[in-house]
Amino acid sequence: MQTYLDCYPCVLRQALEAARMAKATAVQEWEIVQQTLGLLQATPPGSTPPEIGDGVHRIVRKVTGNQDPYRKVKQESTQKALALLPRLREILAEAEDPLETAIRLSIAGNIIDFGPNPVYDLWEVVNRVLHQPFSINDLPVLRQRLGEVRSVLFLADNAGETVFDRLLVEILAPAVTYVVRGGPALNDATREDALAAGLGQVAEVIDNGLQTTGTVLESCDPGFRKRFNEAELIFSKGMGNYETLSDVPAPIFFLLQVKCPIIGRDIDASQGSIVIKQGNGRAPL
Amino acid sequence: MQTYLDCYPCVLRQALEAARMAKATAVQEWEIVQQTLGLLQATPPGSTPPEIGDGVHRIVRKVTGNQDPYRKVKQESTQKALALLPRLREILAEAEDPLETAIRLSIAGNIIDFGPNPVYDLWEVVNRVLHQPFSINDLPVLRQRLGEVRSVLFLADNAGETVFDRLLVEILAPAVTYVVRGGPALNDATREDALAAGLGQVAEVIDNGLQTTGTVLESCDPGFRKRFNEAELIFSKGMGNYETLSDVPAPIFFLLQVKCPIIGRDIDASQGSIVIKQGNGRAPL
Repeated sequence: MQTYLDCYPCVLRQALEAARMAKATAVQEWEIVQQTLGLLQATPPGSTPPEIGDGVHRIVRKVTGNQDPYRKVKQESTQKALALLPRLREILAEAEDPLETAIRLSIAGNIIDFGPNPVYDLWEVVNRVLHQPFSINDLPVLRQRLGEVRSVLFLADNAGETVFDRLLVEILAPAVTYVVRGGPALNDATREDALAAGLGQVAEVIDNGLQTTGTVLESCDPGFRKRFNEAELIFSKGMGNYETLSDVPAPIFFLLQVKCPIIGRDIDASQGSIVIKQGNGRAPL
Repeated sequence: MQTYLDCYPCVLRQALEAARMAKATAVQEWEIVQQTLGLLQATPPGSTPPEIGDGVHRIVRKVTGNQDPYRKVKQESTQKALALLPRLREILAEAEDPLETAIRLSIAGNIIDFGPNPVYDLWEVVNRVLHQPFSINDLPVLRQRLGEVRSVLFLADNAGETVFDRLLVEILAPAVTYVVRGGPALNDATREDALAAGLGQVAEVIDNGLQTTGTVLESCDPGFRKRFNEAELIFSKGMGNYETLSDVPAPIFFLLQVKCPIIGRDIDASQGSIVIKQGNGRAPL
């Protein structure tokens, strides 16, 4: 997905948010905003939002010297999500359709902002996502493909969400490789976050070699690219992976909530809706 | 009120909105955003948001050649608001405290987005504002001052809102001078809009000589500045006037809804709240 002009205000907002997360001084904040304005002016056409975001987070790291502003938030998110695990397991054990329920929980994990929200909000989200109709529902095709493949490449999104993904990974019959970012990028999961969420016990955990809130294939580690190109079936979580992979011909299913109107327009689903969408699939290998 | 860095994303958003309102082509949209990024980079510290907005709307006018992108929207807003006038008059006639009710209706007029909203939303807003407690309520002081002065300078905000203001102007005992913008600025009321709303029948209508969504005193027409400096009592409607006059020592009362978190922080009231706030008053003349 290309970056729309409507994304520019959001990029500026994210720059400020990241600056504050990195405890930037007022002067540093100003410097970060100035450099972000310059970055936007110099953005080449066709860049995806995570590629621009990458530039923003480089600026924040350089100006503040803080290499991982979201580290504490990520650790807290994982801890909070782990505390929910027993109840989530109960929900899954009672489910009529475990695959659908596990996918719904995994999407709920994508929605939850583990930051400032109190616990009741969180269960509200889980309950809503358990019952909300899908705006795009390619679950029947996904279910069929899951019966045919031996392995799944699972592209992770945020820390905390990882715990919800773990439940889905656990019930999948094919072997799962869980792919995290190669380094800190916003609150996206790195190897450290995935292992803290227990993914190491249920999947092979690899990283894509990239410190970006998405999967910019041409910049990823060659080892990961090979795995991606050979994958039988790919799960892609969240908006950043969608933004960078929506035009890639590959056997992908995107699992996400539409949190932004621009992505909603691109994917053809309204803001707030939940989606299981098959990508521009290529013929099975 | 100074412009905060948090205002920058909003400035970009407004630039895009204005570009679309002016029916800019895709290339013009891009040009407008690029120039707005440059404008933000060159913004001198201490500028108020309407001063930056002024620059944005200059860019939109220059790039698109459209001198008044909001003209049709403004005319429609006035027509829609005029259609409500009989029912608004009934509400006011039944009011226990006509001054408070007229002020509440005038603030409701500030909130209503006459654009895409259907009529029922609009009455919902009116009803809410008629009953919502004020977050800051300097009505007792305002009421007292109204009993002491012979004239009121009334600084208008948007077209459409003008109709609601008219009801307030009608019940004020002192003579009212209704001040509009000197030329098109967003959907702010100009002389044409005020006269279409019937303000000419109940007040003297003057303009401030400025084509900006606020009252930047040092740039206003000298004739208006004299009136402002000599005013016994000033009503200031909306956020743009607040942003440009909040630090000015003058006998002002700000009537507004807090639509933005940054202004909320500045005025010390939460977003969505309604406010009657006495400004940094000077001794009565």
